[in-house]
Amino acid sequence: MGHRAGRDPRLTTHVALTARALGAARLYLHPPDPELAERIAAVGRRWGGRFEVVGAPEWKKVVRGFDGPIVHLTMYGEPIDEVARAVRRSPRVLVVVGGAKVPAELYRLSTRNAAAGHQPHSEVAALALLLDRLVGIPPAGRWPGARQEIVPSARGKSVRTHERPTGAP
Amino acid sequence: MGHRAGRDPRLTTHVALTARALGAARLYLHPPDPELAERIAAVGRRWGGRFEVVGAPEWKKVVRGFDGPIVHLTMYGEPIDEVARAVRRSPRVLVVVGGAKVPAELYRLSTRNAAAGHQPHSEVAALALLLDRLVGIPPAGRWPGARQEIVPSARGKSVRTHERPTGAP
Repeated sequence: MGHRAGRDPRLTTHVALTARALGAARLYLHPPDPELAERIAAVGRRWGGRFEVVGAPEWKKVVRGFDGPIVHLTMYGEPIDEVARAVRRSPRVLVVVGGAKVPAELYRLSTRNAAAGHQPHSEVAALALLLDRLVGIPPAGRWPGARQEIVPSARGKSVRTHERPTGAP
Repeated sequence: MGHRAGRDPRLTTHVALTARALGAARLYLHPPDPELAERIAAVGRRWGGRFEVVGAPEWKKVVRGFDGPIVHLTMYGEPIDEVARAVRRSPRVLVVVGGAKVPAELYRLSTRNAAAGHQPHSEVAALALLLDRLVGIPPAGRWPGARQEIVPSARGKSVRTHERPTGAP
């Protein structure tokens, strides 16, 4: 929430890449930013997976229409480990990430307000810490449709290129 | 490494806040950025702790002079869980975070190259995931010298203000 297309392109890109790399299915972006959505789609065409960025002109519709627990990340909330334990078994969780100026209403509309440490921090880091507790880091090679795949290595860079995308028919 | 003072102020601020919130002692910033260092120092005067940003004009001096394992975060490296297990007991660990264009030499000078997932990701997220494995999220109230302290809450914002900083003589 509260993406500023002109000012925060890199920060919101980091939010999107973090969500994708840690197994989220989708980022609802408010306000929408088609250029950013396309940049992240290009990452998926190359590296696989089904993550998508969906523009959300009205954030309340997303929050009200969601059938599962809604976790709002804020340094004022309850410890993230407690909240992760409480929602971990839900098939779908909506995580809300905003800047400093989210509407006060969000604290009420969320199922849980969760803090990844009660200190000023990064929403990118907070999102990573929560998704790690809910999903974990997907192993290399678990990304259907990848044209490129990293071979983990102690030194340097090793990338395998697929002529046909992995997992494609 | 590779901070661009004019271009990346917010992103490097997120790296610094993440390091601080997850228990790091110090950020060596290359190239130095005194304004950023002062902004983070101001966070510490208000919220406590002893974290500091130290300008590092020559990154190799920091890496070569460090007495402990050096973990370079890169999507090409070995799985972060393996690396965290290997270095967790060392009293001091240097974590190197860079952009896309770190010098190739760094892969060789580091003790370990570690990946928080083998996908394009955020260095802020990768740093958070590694520090979480090495240190964990410090509990609220464990920040000496704080003038403000958050009281974790299910709804809204609750902040306790100290007339004298906590833990001060």
